[in-house]
Amino acid sequence: MKLTGKCARAAIAHPRVLIALLSALVVTFGLVPVASAQSDPLPSWNDGKVKQSIIDFVTRVTKKDGPDYVEPEERVATFDNDGTLWIEQPVYNQFAFALDEVKAQANQHPEWKEKEPFKSVLAGDMKAVMAMGEKGMLEIVAATHSGMTTVEFNERVKQWLETAKHPRFKVAYTDLVYQPMLELLNYLRANDFKTFIVSGGGVEFMRNFADKTYGIPPEQVIGSSGVTKYELQDDHPVLVKLPKVLFVDDGPGKPEGINHFIGRQPIFAFGNSDGDKQMLEWTAACKGDCFMGLVHHTDAEREYAYDRNSDIGRLDKALDEALAKGWTVVDMKNDWKTIFPKETTNP
Amino acid sequence: MKLTGKCARAAIAHPRVLIALLSALVVTFGLVPVASAQSDPLPSWNDGKVKQSIIDFVTRVTKKDGPDYVEPEERVATFDNDGTLWIEQPVYNQFAFALDEVKAQANQHPEWKEKEPFKSVLAGDMKAVMAMGEKGMLEIVAATHSGMTTVEFNERVKQWLETAKHPRFKVAYTDLVYQPMLELLNYLRANDFKTFIVSGGGVEFMRNFADKTYGIPPEQVIGSSGVTKYELQDDHPVLVKLPKVLFVDDGPGKPEGINHFIGRQPIFAFGNSDGDKQMLEWTAACKGDCFMGLVHHTDAEREYAYDRNSDIGRLDKALDEALAKGWTVVDMKNDWKTIFPKETTNP
Repeated sequence: MKLTGKCARAAIAHPRVLIALLSALVVTFGLVPVASAQSDPLPSWNDGKVKQSIIDFVTRVTKKDGPDYVEPEERVATFDNDGTLWIEQPVYNQFAFALDEVKAQANQHPEWKEKEPFKSVLAGDMKAVMAMGEKGMLEIVAATHSGMTTVEFNERVKQWLETAKHPRFKVAYTDLVYQPMLELLNYLRANDFKTFIVSGGGVEFMRNFADKTYGIPPEQVIGSSGVTKYELQDDHPVLVKLPKVLFVDDGPGKPEGINHFIGRQPIFAFGNSDGDKQMLEWTAACKGDCFMGLVHHTDAEREYAYDRNSDIGRLDKALDEALAKGWTVVDMKNDWKTIFPKETTNP
Repeated sequence: MKLTGKCARAAIAHPRVLIALLSALVVTFGLVPVASAQSDPLPSWNDGKVKQSIIDFVTRVTKKDGPDYVEPEERVATFDNDGTLWIEQPVYNQFAFALDEVKAQANQHPEWKEKEPFKSVLAGDMKAVMAMGEKGMLEIVAATHSGMTTVEFNERVKQWLETAKHPRFKVAYTDLVYQPMLELLNYLRANDFKTFIVSGGGVEFMRNFADKTYGIPPEQVIGSSGVTKYELQDDHPVLVKLPKVLFVDDGPGKPEGINHFIGRQPIFAFGNSDGDKQMLEWTAACKGDCFMGLVHHTDAEREYAYDRNSDIGRLDKALDEALAKGWTVVDMKNDWKTIFPKETTNP
């Protein structure tokens, strides 16, 4: 459609006329700006039933007067982060940060040279670190994520994100987000969904890049968290991070966290592992039409291929449930045209 | 300013032209609809330095290119609830709910007849209940706020809010919100502030009326919370409320909760008691211009008068700090033209 020339030219030439006209139109018709029609809102998704299931769902719940219409304020979409929005192999990115922090802080902790799991981290013996399992991992995270103020912690995370490189792809971690998922987030927001992260990762870690990287503001990031303690340092209030867990936002903790932080049930949720099973079940129990999706990592060449036997991002029971219940399962290799926003070399 | 007739008529006559024009204008100039100028955004506030301090602050931080300009996404405003947005005397409204619940659930708990603090509640002996102090109060809240699913709890709260009356004013509790504060919330939102509740009250309790009453959606309500447990009941997922505290959002817990839930520092905060002291200090430590306000209950006739010696909503240390640091202190009797949205009789 072409704008009638005279009217448009007059309006463009006189900004104050424009504003008045705009206000008049909004008042008169309750109009809101409409995004210009996109030929394809998900260009990095190959055509097929996965892409179509997303578009069909969004079309149904946004069709005013349709049987599945959902009011905008109830359009809550929750996304897992690690393995769903960005890469999670060969170790969770936040754990890579923690390992780098052990090295960076080693001078202030001479005792770490003789104390596990730090000793093995400092010796670069990753096999030994991984053999210590979850207990060792938690000790490393607790030690590097506490004993400082929230401001100091945020500075460390920001600095790490700017400088650290992924061991295989040799680019910044924030370059290893999934382009198809960025498009999906934008597509949902363009349709008045409110997008949230609901991740087992640390809430404060994620808030340092979620806004810039995903367009998800801090108050819409939900994650695991430690206890903080308010205190005055030289009359200046600070929050000190303590080595004590407040809330674990994983598995059954995801619906609990959704209730705790959002207080609404999602109608759209995407995950990639067994840690997302309960979030997807909780979403499936929504009142009307709802969408449950899983990213299945099937692309060893462009990213990684792993599922039932992986220690990181294991996808086993949730995959069975998705297949049994007809949830959408993304086959990364076949459903995604591109993986990352910038082309990466393929090491 | 008058719209040029021809252009406006053409636009109004052809809605599709309008939409296209609107889109073009938005794209071309990044224009957004401007709210029509209000003669007085705070009509229930008497003119004076308190009202002026609010308007001056909002004007400063929203003045593009001004020295105190704050980007919209950083315009976070946090409000205490009890005594700041609605009445809190003679007992916190949520405690009145808990007392009514003890009576409503007594048949299912025959042991309560002989067990304190329930025995005194059932006997209507409020003096004895209050004498048991915080411990008794917590026991009553824990017993009536757990052992059910979140859905069941929400139904109970909604039913109570619809039927219960305040002992003095004989109207629903949600009619005893402060009209001047409703105007303030609207005024801030009209200036692109995001308004949050940050209360010592229970988050799930408040979410049952905050949206309808204050225009604050569930995901912007922060409060104290109990632990919930995800489980399947007849294959249907539920969250069961356990009698275990997860987080106390009061005193130092307020800045901790703000960090936990919002992840941004407020630039505007309003409270009314010593439980808000740390939230106001935390707000005062913001980077640029910030606003700290307290409601001082000085109107025994139209509401209540209490401060340094009150067990409920004690305002003592926070008042000293506000006076010393020049924070805004509302004198309810003199600064508020009206108290409640509907006129109440004056018992």
